[in-house]
Amino acid sequence: MAEKIKLTSREQDYSQWYLDVAQTGELFEYSPTPGCITFLPKSTDIWQRIRAHIDAKIRVMGVQNVMLPMLVPMEFFMKEADHVEGFAPEIATVTRVGDKELDAPLGLRPTSETMFCDFFRKRLRSYRDLPILCNQWCNILRWEKRTRPFLRTAEFHWQEGHTLHRTRDEAWEFVLSILHDVYIDTIRNLLAIDGIAGRKSESEKFAGGDVTTTFEPMMSNGWALQICTSHLLAQGFMEGFDVSFADEDGSLKHPYYTSWGLSTRSIGGMISAHSDDRGLIIPPRISEYRAVILPIYGKDRDEETNAYARRVAAMLVPDGTEIPVKGESMRAVTNNQERVLLDLRNERVGAKITDWELSGYPVRIECGAREMDEWVVTVASRITGEKSTVPVSEVFATVSRLLNEGQTELLRRSTERLRTNTVACRTLEEVGAAVEAGKFALYAWDLDPEFEKIIKDRWKATTRCLPFDGQFTDELLPITDPKLHRVIVARAF
Amino acid sequence: MAEKIKLTSREQDYSQWYLDVAQTGELFEYSPTPGCITFLPKSTDIWQRIRAHIDAKIRVMGVQNVMLPMLVPMEFFMKEADHVEGFAPEIATVTRVGDKELDAPLGLRPTSETMFCDFFRKRLRSYRDLPILCNQWCNILRWEKRTRPFLRTAEFHWQEGHTLHRTRDEAWEFVLSILHDVYIDTIRNLLAIDGIAGRKSESEKFAGGDVTTTFEPMMSNGWALQICTSHLLAQGFMEGFDVSFADEDGSLKHPYYTSWGLSTRSIGGMISAHSDDRGLIIPPRISEYRAVILPIYGKDRDEETNAYARRVAAMLVPDGTEIPVKGESMRAVTNNQERVLLDLRNERVGAKITDWELSGYPVRIECGAREMDEWVVTVASRITGEKSTVPVSEVFATVSRLLNEGQTELLRRSTERLRTNTVACRTLEEVGAAVEAGKFALYAWDLDPEFEKIIKDRWKATTRCLPFDGQFTDELLPITDPKLHRVIVARAF
Repeated sequence: MAEKIKLTSREQDYSQWYLDVAQTGELFEYSPTPGCITFLPKSTDIWQRIRAHIDAKIRVMGVQNVMLPMLVPMEFFMKEADHVEGFAPEIATVTRVGDKELDAPLGLRPTSETMFCDFFRKRLRSYRDLPILCNQWCNILRWEKRTRPFLRTAEFHWQEGHTLHRTRDEAWEFVLSILHDVYIDTIRNLLAIDGIAGRKSESEKFAGGDVTTTFEPMMSNGWALQICTSHLLAQGFMEGFDVSFADEDGSLKHPYYTSWGLSTRSIGGMISAHSDDRGLIIPPRISEYRAVILPIYGKDRDEETNAYARRVAAMLVPDGTEIPVKGESMRAVTNNQERVLLDLRNERVGAKITDWELSGYPVRIECGAREMDEWVVTVASRITGEKSTVPVSEVFATVSRLLNEGQTELLRRSTERLRTNTVACRTLEEVGAAVEAGKFALYAWDLDPEFEKIIKDRWKATTRCLPFDGQFTDELLPITDPKLHRVIVARAF
Repeated sequence: MAEKIKLTSREQDYSQWYLDVAQTGELFEYSPTPGCITFLPKSTDIWQRIRAHIDAKIRVMGVQNVMLPMLVPMEFFMKEADHVEGFAPEIATVTRVGDKELDAPLGLRPTSETMFCDFFRKRLRSYRDLPILCNQWCNILRWEKRTRPFLRTAEFHWQEGHTLHRTRDEAWEFVLSILHDVYIDTIRNLLAIDGIAGRKSESEKFAGGDVTTTFEPMMSNGWALQICTSHLLAQGFMEGFDVSFADEDGSLKHPYYTSWGLSTRSIGGMISAHSDDRGLIIPPRISEYRAVILPIYGKDRDEETNAYARRVAAMLVPDGTEIPVKGESMRAVTNNQERVLLDLRNERVGAKITDWELSGYPVRIECGAREMDEWVVTVASRITGEKSTVPVSEVFATVSRLLNEGQTELLRRSTERLRTNTVACRTLEEVGAAVEAGKFALYAWDLDPEFEKIIKDRWKATTRCLPFDGQFTDELLPITDPKLHRVIVARAF
């Protein structure tokens, strides 16, 4: 592969670079279904790791998983006025089965608030039933005109949480807990991407929501990406679907409703935030393989070198563990906890290194004749670029250190980029200039929607969030007038 | 709940009994989408456990997970003649997005052979790429006229494996390995259901397949249920989608294709196979909670009794583990490995026991004033009915024993039922009589399809499989004529 594909550079064409990185990183394949992609094993594995992390977090919070149908009766969408307006143009509709027309067409879920409301109505009776905390892992379909693998596809995968609470305060606390303890934790600590937490403006919030909270990470071109949102929903859903409960005093009340989702778009964020002109970079914590061992051959593939490579592998995994071999057997071995891969292909060392770079796996371990003689190996990090020759006895410690440092370094870079490229702007023109330079513009906004029209028309920019307190000092951008609010303006995928 | 619902008995009306058990066991909720159900937390958890077991098994075999789109271009179904004939009437078709008609309608996958073939065509080049071993966990839609929760629903969930091999022998070996090492292992050892392994007749095999293998378990009414199938597919798919590879000698060849699936129908099998007139029974290995502690109160809810119940719980889980409380907090606690649940509701002991019976959880632990005085508990098994009073110090050992014995006992019963209710039949009339009596009829068949028409018309029965050798002795049904083959005839869900 290395010799066939020349990566476009980030500088030259960011969009093409992104596609090249995702393709040479073997994350996706184009699909015959318009706007959809095939998730290859590597991205499926990454999603599985993100899923396991989030699932464990929310289950400890008391959230229970359910599975609701993917097809939604079309009249359901009509029950919440803003909701139908927001989603109607994107809903793929089943009108026929075999050669028979359906009496009542069904929509493929663009999100499942309406189905959960119907579900809640049947189950909620008394204040004693509250809170009800549900989640589902599922596929979603939103027809998109312009698609981009992972970042914007017609079908994507996500979790969508839906909860009911007795009071608005309790619901709001839950919305924030999901945002901070689950989403920001996942995005910073697993995906190693930093961003800005806040609430969406009125025009950018969820269709049918009251307050939408978000964590907007910055990509390597300075654009924003909406990976996750956590909503306090308006009472419209509860009224439209007649969801209510008998409170302690016997009175009938509507509960407060939250919904929240994080999607496979996060994989697009990972690609865009970390990768470079040599290809994909995957944060160690979510990488299927973390260390690739490359035996370096002389003229021929050399059994002695392979045997040495296997001895090195044995320093990383328990005795007798079978190590997956690139291009031969990709068996998942349960005790391969260091996630080691052997590249025994009979290729030149340059080609193997290039392939490893494109793969995005964090660490490589070279062992050739020179290393063998001295009982050492050469270990290199894809992330920090550190390369050193160490005794075989130190390979485990060295790899562990490089993985930890790599994970930390990716987040440090992301935080640094965010800090450097978020600029305080005093005027509309400064906002425009910042956005055009690939930066987040921090601005004091009077919440007038006219502003959002202007930045969209002139610079294709949107308000990304009204940051929560504590992220920006008065020094950077003082807020003197109580009518003004800090806002982040940026271009977004 | 206990006092509101009276279960229909199995004897009285099997179908209604099945529904009552599944509903009082809180496994599903009816859905507003025709033919679909909502999987409640308990059945979602069971499916998750089945999934984790199968996923680990196939990954060790080298199978990699991918995610392909759920929408399939309609023309894809036309490329394999038998396949389109088999599935066309069940395919739900998206013809519209928002208010715009699509130029090319898309079908919701009823299975993904066509999409995998297109995917394989793009990726397969050389014999060195083989085998290609893929799987996906996904939802499926097949429009059904008559539905029954879990057993037959329009949307269901499954895994579908798709693999390519260089030779027919290798493909066939893989088909059998999936059937035996993965499916039969899962159905017998997790679901505790026994059945008969074999191949499907020509008329019952997969549309577009060459050989379909199956494991047909017997339900408690003597009907069969198709839970899993593992197919060696015909070359039609490879030809229709032009999937080929350059062999070692440079010649272009079609690979051999297998596909295999196990679905959420298995949960229906679990309900039907084990439950009784007192409600649901869940095999311990796949039950979310395995032991429910029921404090028995005097006149009032008694804090002393609750404290005692918590001390008993502490014998089952590590120190400091928070135990989920029925109706209060259902937090999943990672170190609650014994999967203990506390029922602290202020209900009469009879109501609590009835609720526990309906829940299907395998073991209950009663602790009231009498137990507290003597530092003992009363432990009972939902499966074997064993009930004994043991010192608190023995609660862990007793619960563990009852769980193991319960799992074993369910499989033993299932095996016994299968053995007793599979009867050798010499004539067509004997086949009919056996089927009508709720039995599997073992018959020597000449493979004439006319036979299948007759048994369907006269007794609503089908051939379930041609059993593999070794399951039935010559003594039971001698096969003297080489044109004759053993076949199992039964009614099926």
